[in-house]
Formats: sequence, structure tokens, C-alpha cells
Amino acid sequence: MPEDYGWEGEAHSLAVEKVLYKGNSEFQEVLVFESSTYGKVLVLDGIVQLTEKDECAYQEMIAHLPLCSIPSPKTVLVVGGGDGGVLREISRHSSVEQIDICEIDKMVIDVSKRFFPELAVGFEDPRVHLYIADAVDFLRCAPKGKYDAVIVDSSDPVGPAQELVGKPFFETVARALRPGGVLCNMAESMWLHTHLIQDMIYTCRQTFKGSVHYAWASVPTYPSGVIGFLICSTDGPPVDFINPINPIEKLEGALKHKRELRFYNSEMHSAAFALPSFLKREVTFLRDSPISGQPICIS
Amino acid sequence: MPEDYGWEGEAHSLAVEKVLYKGNSEFQEVLVFESSTYGKVLVLDGIVQLTEKDECAYQEMIAHLPLCSIPSPKTVLVVGGGDGGVLREISRHSSVEQIDICEIDKMVIDVSKRFFPELAVGFEDPRVHLYIADAVDFLRCAPKGKYDAVIVDSSDPVGPAQELVGKPFFETVARALRPGGVLCNMAESMWLHTHLIQDMIYTCRQTFKGSVHYAWASVPTYPSGVIGFLICSTDGPPVDFINPINPIEKLEGALKHKRELRFYNSEMHSAAFALPSFLKREVTFLRDSPISGQPICIS
Repeated sequence: MPEDYGWEGEAHSLAVEKVLYKGNSEFQEVLVFESSTYGKVLVLDGIVQLTEKDECAYQEMIAHLPLCSIPSPKTVLVVGGGDGGVLREISRHSSVEQIDICEIDKMVIDVSKRFFPELAVGFEDPRVHLYIADAVDFLRCAPKGKYDAVIVDSSDPVGPAQELVGKPFFETVARALRPGGVLCNMAESMWLHTHLIQDMIYTCRQTFKGSVHYAWASVPTYPSGVIGFLICSTDGPPVDFINPINPIEKLEGALKHKRELRFYNSEMHSAAFALPSFLKREVTFLRDSPISGQPICIS
Repeated sequence: MPEDYGWEGEAHSLAVEKVLYKGNSEFQEVLVFESSTYGKVLVLDGIVQLTEKDECAYQEMIAHLPLCSIPSPKTVLVVGGGDGGVLREISRHSSVEQIDICEIDKMVIDVSKRFFPELAVGFEDPRVHLYIADAVDFLRCAPKGKYDAVIVDSSDPVGPAQELVGKPFFETVARALRPGGVLCNMAESMWLHTHLIQDMIYTCRQTFKGSVHYAWASVPTYPSGVIGFLICSTDGPPVDFINPINPIEKLEGALKHKRELRFYNSEMHSAAFALPSFLKREVTFLRDSPISGQPICIS
């Protein structure tokens, strides 16, 4: 029996071996099933959020793209990310002293702790402080300049996450970041959502006065097989996102912490900023991005 | 109505607006349909070969990865590629004097000329010489050292293409290449076919005494959303595949020839050789590949 997500002329289907959980939280429908080829799968409101086989690509990229781009990150905020996978990745960085996570839906956390122990292990880190709250409210109350990095691991901008792509939200993020602090935000598919990407980049360029980049990674179970990341820095010490100043290979213990890295490495980091010609042409700003103008080194 | 290809616990489905053609050649079933989101789709024996929306990624990468890696390519052989898309891309290279194509199934060419004029335009180049033949026989009869580059644009290694992944085939390719000549071969998905990739790399390392690399690109309508390329050179002048010696941006007229490049550029070329950690770990040889040992420059 196939489990389809989305049907706008295209669908990716995974065979369901067994439904393990189905419930309705205050915010959304939460479903967990065992697939025959991708391990266990978490589905929110009918949209695949992660599978055990390929979650490595998304979780590792969204955490290390920002954290490897700045020296010695200390305070990090995760918006969403209730499965815990991003926490697991952040905890590889021994410089980090505080990891705040603001997740609106406690059921996602409970379900992850029950069915996805390889992700929920991230909650066990003593540096983690969990807030069950709306991220917009949380960020409004956060002290100005508190965070070195904010990672927005939201679901698609429908349902509870629809506020997380607007200018007011990005402004509260920028306010909560220190000068030269960084944001990494889930940013859809380059093959399917060019206009949404263009809008997000336009908004972020107005808000983030450091730099604004787009990167992407291969995730088979996301629509069109890719996911993008919008990565920005505030006015302050310049951040060179493409050549990580804090390479993961040089962080003691990071490669083995809790489990080996499966996807991310410094070459994948730099390569993620290389963009197809069609995207550079359609998203005006990307034509002027530094990667097309000057040689960059990846190692 | 969805059109599924493959069902081993996973399927990608495209809505069929209209079936445009269905026929059986001597070798395979040939189907063309209009999809609602990816334009027209070519299907051989139930497996999606290309869609109008994303064919750019595959055709451009498989042609320019090898041809931009060597100076002034003159003679090129395409194995398979009956849709003509690879020919269209090769013809951007004005140094090329002769483009031979050996396709076993004339029906693929006829169907492409009728339904995919943007690909079949490749056949109109006067440098193209078409041979309807079995590629193994054709290569056995080719003069030793004739080609600067061989591009194997085959279907999956079942049906007519099953001979094209074995050692004898790679040996006939190597024999037909000049010293320092290059092969680029379609090489499956890094997410799904690690063992097949390992086998192909092992075989090619025995046969190609120059270098052997693996690269990949995002193609939404292929299984797991990616396709790989095995790229090799014979003993002779060394070939640095990762830093193209013959960048497409510097080739006069190449960016606009017949149509604009949609996917490939020099950054995408170099980035395609960055591999996820799981692939480097599982495919032993890749651990020792130059990209992990020394800095490389992409521009």
C-alpha cells in the first residue's frame, strides 16, 4: 500500500509495512510508519518530514552549514526541530554552551522519543533547554543579540509554520542574533519553488545586512529529491559561508559524536553553494553572488 | 492517473495528461506521455528516461563533465543517447570535428524526432554520424585510439544495455580512446546502488590507468532524485576532472548554442565531485580520491 504525500501532478510513494502511530495534536496530524526501503517515516499533515535512511542529509546540512561558518559558536537556537535530529548534530560542536529549542508541538517530541531514538538522542544533551512555545513569541522575548546562530527547522509554510517565512519573523530572528550571527532556514526545492525562493531571498536581503546565500542538498524523500537552505548573516564580522572557518574535520570528537557523520563534510559544505544555471538566472540576486565572481577553495 | 516506474517499496509518480505514443521496438517498449508538471516524458520498458523539465541536468552534465576536462576535444563517440540530447550538448564545443553516435534502437530516434524536437535537434549537426548498431560490436571495429571522449548514455543495465557495465565493454572503450582520452558513463544512484557503483569503479580502475572518479547530479525524475557519472581517463596526459581545463564559459558561443545552458556551469562541474560521507565510506576507493586529500579550486 503506497503512502502518497502531495499530489499536484507528482508524488513520491513509499511502501507502508506497518503504521506505528497515528494521532492528532493541537496543531497537526502526526503519523509514523515503517517503510520497506527507508526505515521508519515521520509524516505531519500528510507531508513526509523525515525517514531514517535519508534524514542524515537534512539534519547534518542544516546544522553544520551555519555552525561551521563561524568560529566557536556558543549559543544556538533551534526553531521547530522537535524530532531532535538537529540537536544531535549541534551537540558535535564542543564550543557550544547553550542550545535552546523552541518547538510548538509537544507531540512531535514525544513521538520522536518513542519511535526515533537515533534522532531524539539530541534531547539528552545537558546543554539543551526545551521551550514548548510559538517561535514568534519566543523570539520577541529573547534578549537582543543573544544567539550566535539560529536554525529554523520548520515544516512547510502551511499550518503551524506559515508565519515562519514572512518579514516580521526574519526581523525577530535578526534582532535575536549577535552582530555577525547566522541564520540557516529550510528553503524548499530549487526545481519546484523558484518564486518562493526568490521571495525569501528578497526579504532576507532587506533584513540581513551581512550576506545572504542559497545552498542545497540531495534528500530523496523530499519533493523533487532536493531541499534548499537560506543562509544569512547579520551586520558585523563578515562570514564566509562557502569556505568554512570552523571545519568539522578539525573539531575534536565531532566526527564520531553519538554517531558518525553520514552526509556532511567540508567538501559537501562548499559544493552545496554551487547552483544550477536556471536558478541563478531566475533568482536575480544569485547572479551577483560571490561564488560566480571569484575562485573559491574547497578542501 | 499516475504513471509509476519501478516498485521496490518506492515509486515516483507523474500525472499522465495524455499518452502520445506507445510502441514496441525489436528491443523494448517505447512510451511517450504528456505529464502535467514535467512536460513530455519518454519511458523505455517502464523506466522514465527523460522529461522535458529536467533533462537539462542529465544531458548537460554527461556531455560537459568529460568534454570540459580535456583541451580541444575533436572526436567524440556517444553510445546510446538516441534522443539526441547529448549530441545537442556536444555540439556546443566548436573544437569537435566528428561526433559518432551508436544507438541500437532506431525507434528511440524516430520517437524523439517526432515528440522531443528540443533534444532531437542534436541530430541536425553536420558533424554527427549515426550508426544503428550494437555498441559492443561497433567499438570492437573502431580504430584503436580513435576517440578523445566516449560518452555512454545508456538505459539501466537491464534489457539491451546489460552488456554495458561489464569489464569486456570497458576494455573495448579504453582501446578506442587515445592516450589520456576520457569516458563518462551513466552510473546509477548513490542512495540506492552503492554496490553497483563499487563494482563499476573496481572494474574501471583495472581498465583505466589514468584516473577514475565518481560525480553526481540532481535529476528529480530519476529514482532517489539523483544520477551518478563514472568518469575515467586512459593512461596518457593526466586529466584533472575536478578543475576543468576547458571551462564552458570561455568557449565562444557555447552558452547560447541552440539553447541556453540550464543546469551545467563550471561551479556545478567541480561541485559534482563532492561526495557524501556515507558514499566515501562504503566505496573504498573513494576514500583515497584526490578531492579528500588536497584543496581544490572551483571558480
